[in-house]
Amino acid sequence: MIIKTNYLQIPTLDLECGETLSQVVIAYETYGQLNEKKDNAILVLHALTGDAHAAGKHDEQAAKAGWWDNFIGSGKAIDTDRFFVISSNVVGGCAGSTGPASTNPITNKPYGLSFPFITIKDMVKAQKILIESLEIEQLASCIGGSMGGMQALEWALTYPSYCRSFAILASAPYQSPQNIALHEVGRRAIMNDPHWKGGIYHGALPPNGGLSIARMIAHITYLSDKTMHQKFGRRIRGKDELNFELHNEFEVESYLEYQGRSFIQRFDANSYLYITRAVDYFDYSNNRLREAFESNKFHDKVKFLILSFTSDWLYPTYQSLDIVKALEYCLLPVTFCEINSSYGHDAFLLEDQQLTPIIRGFLGNLEV
Amino acid sequence: MIIKTNYLQIPTLDLECGETLSQVVIAYETYGQLNEKKDNAILVLHALTGDAHAAGKHDEQAAKAGWWDNFIGSGKAIDTDRFFVISSNVVGGCAGSTGPASTNPITNKPYGLSFPFITIKDMVKAQKILIESLEIEQLASCIGGSMGGMQALEWALTYPSYCRSFAILASAPYQSPQNIALHEVGRRAIMNDPHWKGGIYHGALPPNGGLSIARMIAHITYLSDKTMHQKFGRRIRGKDELNFELHNEFEVESYLEYQGRSFIQRFDANSYLYITRAVDYFDYSNNRLREAFESNKFHDKVKFLILSFTSDWLYPTYQSLDIVKALEYCLLPVTFCEINSSYGHDAFLLEDQQLTPIIRGFLGNLEV
Repeated sequence: MIIKTNYLQIPTLDLECGETLSQVVIAYETYGQLNEKKDNAILVLHALTGDAHAAGKHDEQAAKAGWWDNFIGSGKAIDTDRFFVISSNVVGGCAGSTGPASTNPITNKPYGLSFPFITIKDMVKAQKILIESLEIEQLASCIGGSMGGMQALEWALTYPSYCRSFAILASAPYQSPQNIALHEVGRRAIMNDPHWKGGIYHGALPPNGGLSIARMIAHITYLSDKTMHQKFGRRIRGKDELNFELHNEFEVESYLEYQGRSFIQRFDANSYLYITRAVDYFDYSNNRLREAFESNKFHDKVKFLILSFTSDWLYPTYQSLDIVKALEYCLLPVTFCEINSSYGHDAFLLEDQQLTPIIRGFLGNLEV
Repeated sequence: MIIKTNYLQIPTLDLECGETLSQVVIAYETYGQLNEKKDNAILVLHALTGDAHAAGKHDEQAAKAGWWDNFIGSGKAIDTDRFFVISSNVVGGCAGSTGPASTNPITNKPYGLSFPFITIKDMVKAQKILIESLEIEQLASCIGGSMGGMQALEWALTYPSYCRSFAILASAPYQSPQNIALHEVGRRAIMNDPHWKGGIYHGALPPNGGLSIARMIAHITYLSDKTMHQKFGRRIRGKDELNFELHNEFEVESYLEYQGRSFIQRFDANSYLYITRAVDYFDYSNNRLREAFESNKFHDKVKFLILSFTSDWLYPTYQSLDIVKALEYCLLPVTFCEINSSYGHDAFLLEDQQLTPIIRGFLGNLEV
C-alpha cells in the first residue's frame, strides 16, 4: 500500500486545561474504503511517540512501513478489504499535527512552552472532529495499545454512542505513580540538557542528549528483563573481554544508544514533555471508571476487548483487569485475554501472530 | 552508640583493570569488641551509594544513624554484644575512601576520569587488607545487601578460607542486562549535564542536575509498583485539582526530586559513574558461579544465607536462586528464604522485623 498523509484544519479547539488552540492541524491517514453506509470505519490510536502513519509505505523506496503494518491491511487483523481504517497524529504531537514545535499563529514563532497543556480527552476531541469531517456518524471500532488504549477508553467514556466496539491493548485506566515517576525523569533529562533552553531551541541545536536519555529510559520499560537476557545477555561489543569504558561497552548499551539516536531524528523534545504529561494526567482510578461506564449510554451491541501481556511491567495485567472488572460490574460485554509473551510492553506491536486471530475474531462479527 | 570513622592507609593497590592505585585511603568504622581469639569479626558490606557509617551516630546531635542501624547494635540482628562489626567505604567511593574525587598524589589534582576502573574484586581486596591490618585472620561472617551482597559473594569466591559464613541479601551473581541499561541511562544523565565537563568539575559547580536524575532513576528501581501506590498513589501536591505544570505536580515527583536533591549533597558524580560500572562488571553468570564454588576450599563448617524479597524487581528472586542452585550443586550448606515484602529492593534496609530473627538465627550458632 502506498499511502499519503492528509491534513485536517480545525479553526479552534477548546482544551480541557481551559485554553483554546486556534488553526489546529491534524495529520491523518486512511486505509481501505469507506462503505456506502459509512459504518465500516475503524479508528486506530497510536502510542506515546507514534504518528498517523500506521500502515503501508509512503513510497515504494521507504525502508519502513507504518508502525502497525503487521496488523492493518488486506487479510490482516484489521482487514482493509472490509474496514476503512483511520489513523491520526495526536494534537500535541510532532508528526504533522499541531504541537509545541508548530508556529503559534499569533506570535509567528514556535509555541515551545507557551503551548497549552493537552490531555487524552483533548486528543480524542480532535479525533471526533476528524471523524465528523469524514461524515462518519459512528465508528465500528476504536483500537489502540498503550496510550492508544487510553484514547480508546476515553472514546468509550466521552463519546459512548459514537462507536460500536473498543479494543484496548497493553493499557491502563490511569497512569500509575511508578509510570509518572518514570516520565518525570525523562522530562528532567530533557530539561537538564544544555540545549533545551527553556524550550526555545528552534532554529538551534535541539536538546538531543536529554531527549535521547528520555527515550532510553522509556525503551527499557518497553522491553522485559527476559527479552533483554535473550536479546543481549551480558555480551560485550565485538569482544570477549572488558574494555573498561564508561559506556557503550555492553551490547545492551549500544542498542539503547541507537534507540535514542534514532528517536531524536523524528521527535520533538517539547512534544515529549507535553505528551508524557497528557498520559500522566489520564485518571480513571478508584471508582471513577465504574461510575463513568455506569453513567454512559452505549450502542445496544457494544463490546469491549481488553488484552494484556504477561511480561508487560509498564502496564501490567492488573491494570487491564481494573477495566474488565468495571465493565463486568456494569454488565457491559467484555472479552479479556492475558497473552503469554516475553516481549514486555512492546508485545502489542510485535505479537501479531498471537493477536491476529483474537482481533480478527473480535472485529469479525461486527455488523458492517 | 557514638561512633568515629577510622582511616586505613594502603601504600599501593593493584587493580583488576591492570592499573595500580597508590596512597589509597579506606574509611571504616567498627562496632562492638574484637574478642581475644579475634574470631568474632563480621564484615558488613554497603550497597551502591552507601558508606562506612553503618550503625550508631557520629555525634549525639546527628539527625540520622548509620544506614543499617536497625540491624547492627546491642541485641539487634548483628549483635554487637557478641560480634565485632567492621564496615568500610568501598574503594572508588566518596565517603572517606579514595575515589575519583580524591587528589591524585602524582598530579596533585582530583583524579576525575583519570581514576582507574574498579571492580567488586578490587573493593574486596581493599577490605581484605583492612581485615589483616586489624590482625583478624578469619571473619565470622561477611554480610551485605545489593552491591554489598555481590561483595560478600566475591569474598566467598576470592578468599574462601578467610570467612566462615556469608549472608547475601537482595543481590545477584551477575548484573542483568536490564540493570546495566538502567545504570547506563543514569551515567548518561550525569555526562550530559552542562556542569560535568568531562569529569573535571572540582572547585566549580558539580553536575547536580544529572546526578540527581541518575538518583531518581535508581530510586524508582529501589521501590516497587505496589509501594508507590501505597505511599503516593496519584496524589497531587497540596491540591485536588491539576495544576498543569510540567513537573513536581504529583507527590511522587516531588518525593523523587527530594531524593535527588538529598543525594547530590553527599555523593560525587564521578564516583557514581565508577561504582555503577563496577556493579555492571560483576559477572558470575552461566556456569562461572558453580565452577568458582567448585574450585574453592571453604571452612569445614562454612554456611550461606541467601535472602530475596518478593517485590524486588532490581534483583529478583530468580537471581538469588541462581546462587542457591550453584551452592546446592556443590553440596555447600545454604539457607534460602524469599521474604514477603512490598518494599521492593529497599526491603533489605527496611524489613528489620522480618529479617532480624533470620539473621540472628544464622549468626547464632556460629562458633565464636
